[in-house]
Amino acid sequence: MENFFWHNPTAVIFGKDTVKELAGHLKAANVKGVLLVYGGKGTFKSGAYDQVTDMLKKAGIAFSELNDVKPNPLIDKVREGISRVKAGGIDAIMPIGGGSAFDSAKAIAAGACYSGDVWDFFVGKAKITKAMPIYGVLTASASSSEVNNIGVVTNPESELKTSITSEFIYPKVSVIDPSFQITLPEKQTIYGGVDIIAHILERVLDGDEGSDLMDAQGYALIRTMMRVIPELIEDPKNYDLRAEYALAGSLAHSGILSVGRKIRGDFSSHRMGHSISFMYGTPHGATLSIILIAWARYLYEENPVPFARLGEEVFDIFDGTDEDKALEAIDALEDFFKDINTPTTLREIGVKEEDIEKLAANASRGESFGKLSKLEPEDVLEIFKLAY
Amino acid sequence: MENFFWHNPTAVIFGKDTVKELAGHLKAANVKGVLLVYGGKGTFKSGAYDQVTDMLKKAGIAFSELNDVKPNPLIDKVREGISRVKAGGIDAIMPIGGGSAFDSAKAIAAGACYSGDVWDFFVGKAKITKAMPIYGVLTASASSSEVNNIGVVTNPESELKTSITSEFIYPKVSVIDPSFQITLPEKQTIYGGVDIIAHILERVLDGDEGSDLMDAQGYALIRTMMRVIPELIEDPKNYDLRAEYALAGSLAHSGILSVGRKIRGDFSSHRMGHSISFMYGTPHGATLSIILIAWARYLYEENPVPFARLGEEVFDIFDGTDEDKALEAIDALEDFFKDINTPTTLREIGVKEEDIEKLAANASRGESFGKLSKLEPEDVLEIFKLAY
Repeated sequence: MENFFWHNPTAVIFGKDTVKELAGHLKAANVKGVLLVYGGKGTFKSGAYDQVTDMLKKAGIAFSELNDVKPNPLIDKVREGISRVKAGGIDAIMPIGGGSAFDSAKAIAAGACYSGDVWDFFVGKAKITKAMPIYGVLTASASSSEVNNIGVVTNPESELKTSITSEFIYPKVSVIDPSFQITLPEKQTIYGGVDIIAHILERVLDGDEGSDLMDAQGYALIRTMMRVIPELIEDPKNYDLRAEYALAGSLAHSGILSVGRKIRGDFSSHRMGHSISFMYGTPHGATLSIILIAWARYLYEENPVPFARLGEEVFDIFDGTDEDKALEAIDALEDFFKDINTPTTLREIGVKEEDIEKLAANASRGESFGKLSKLEPEDVLEIFKLAY
Repeated sequence: MENFFWHNPTAVIFGKDTVKELAGHLKAANVKGVLLVYGGKGTFKSGAYDQVTDMLKKAGIAFSELNDVKPNPLIDKVREGISRVKAGGIDAIMPIGGGSAFDSAKAIAAGACYSGDVWDFFVGKAKITKAMPIYGVLTASASSSEVNNIGVVTNPESELKTSITSEFIYPKVSVIDPSFQITLPEKQTIYGGVDIIAHILERVLDGDEGSDLMDAQGYALIRTMMRVIPELIEDPKNYDLRAEYALAGSLAHSGILSVGRKIRGDFSSHRMGHSISFMYGTPHGATLSIILIAWARYLYEENPVPFARLGEEVFDIFDGTDEDKALEAIDALEDFFKDINTPTTLREIGVKEEDIEKLAANASRGESFGKLSKLEPEDVLEIFKLAY
């Protein structure tokens, strides 16, 4: 096992009707004004917007609003948020939403304490040394952004979707009320679930033998998600299922599953998926179910062991060689994706064959990447062809 | 799933040769003097004492020492520590050891900020509102005290071993270097392991159906511990096994396995075990393997479901009724305890038959307790008889 440092300072308020509990935390920190950061319809439909603004009014805390934050959030919206904060009257950032709102809030929180352009943090030109406090309300589980120190933002100018990581951008307090997720469109429940599963798979399949213990925790999370997603499709209003989903969603990418690993996850599938979202606007989770399967099929013969272990631990596949088990596990994962109606080919989401080279090139950007296996640009092209 | 609040502020430095990394944290907090709190031989033998005092000397931090802290630590030693702190020159408490050192440190940290007698906190006469910072070095995993907010101390006058729980007594930073545990006596590895397993069993067997997800995490931890303990008996110097053990030990009773549960664990076995340790000085883990089996046999017919689930998830027992599976699971657990040489009867540890009533009475203290099933004093007596 590798040495590690673990410190996750985020406080989580989890459960039904808990937004009101934020007031005490805000008052204790002497917060007088917040910037709400959210998308649109979903925030209102879930009831979160009303509960948050009610809570703020009752607590006598002023708020201004940055709305229309998009999925795969854009750097310009972040810049707009930063200007608003710099204009004064705001002591804290309050995302209401899923990963997009939280990720944007993190970039705003850090950018507001910096004199240069916030994009500097994303391209390594500057380091985050300070950020405003974040108090968030989660309405869609998937990214674990509510409990981690990562923010992912897209810059259309540079065609880059990239991220910041800093101890300063952990939310101070996150409210996770699973009942807000009851109104999510079915597709979002499915794609969010795929994203959660991907965050775990990208760890247990990274080729690191760091910690059997944490792998076992990861497999148990995957099994839970594979039970919960189909049950939620049948019974979307079931609070307890929403709660299991939300809790798994927060644990998956909080960082805890990486402790003790040398390779802290192989996020190649995320990187390739981002290229598809960037060009086609495809929901993040849908890109992952496509790419994970193609990536696994491309690699498993050279690296059967982690896929065979996945077969044993998640799909009860115990017969045959490691290669047999690995292939059977990938088939089983693909079957699961098909069962829950998430795409497993680029064709299904309308990708044009002539765009494949562009998609691969955008993912590679001339570099090799990947941990389980180093992917050269030509490997990435093959994976996209397989995915087609 | 029940609503919950989760905030674990402890920073963990985990791995080989990491004591030196404490210096930066102490300097950043402007700590000038610490009180070392430790037991005896083990602290020197593990190398922890030398590494800690070297680190402090190099960092120019003064230290004084409170040593000879016993397993099942005593309130008088805590009082002595508090006097030392109140005499001045100490800004932080630094336990070096296992649960006894950390638990004592927590009581000292809280007591030093209080004008009355520290025992008031244990009997509910006063509430902790402040504590000195704790920077600890773990040399024996079992209690999770290095990452939780609980301190257990014994008062011989009142024949009580009882605990404090407060958000203020989480350690600020805990160093977990698994290599310190390589010199542990075999018995301590075994009994510590039983304690870790008990902390998980006492949750998954509490009768709460709060969160399948967290139960699955717990079962995965138990399976890991049941693999690691026998391997460590064979190969006690194996660092990676020590690391898996230490990591499981910290997760088990950190509180994370209780999130979402209504009943946050049924610690009846701990309570009954404490009564044995109190009277016979029996190591804590040895009392647990005895009592857990007797408790389970006494209760399972009325409550077969959690035991049956344990059978399925940990022992791959899938055939028969819930009662069949439950009994088979308890037999399998008892076999495991026998395999690793931890006692499963009171007779084995030399308890005299005539003491059984006293042991039971000490555990009950005239009250009923327990969650899976309420235990009246007469039930407790029956359990102790079964355990004999």
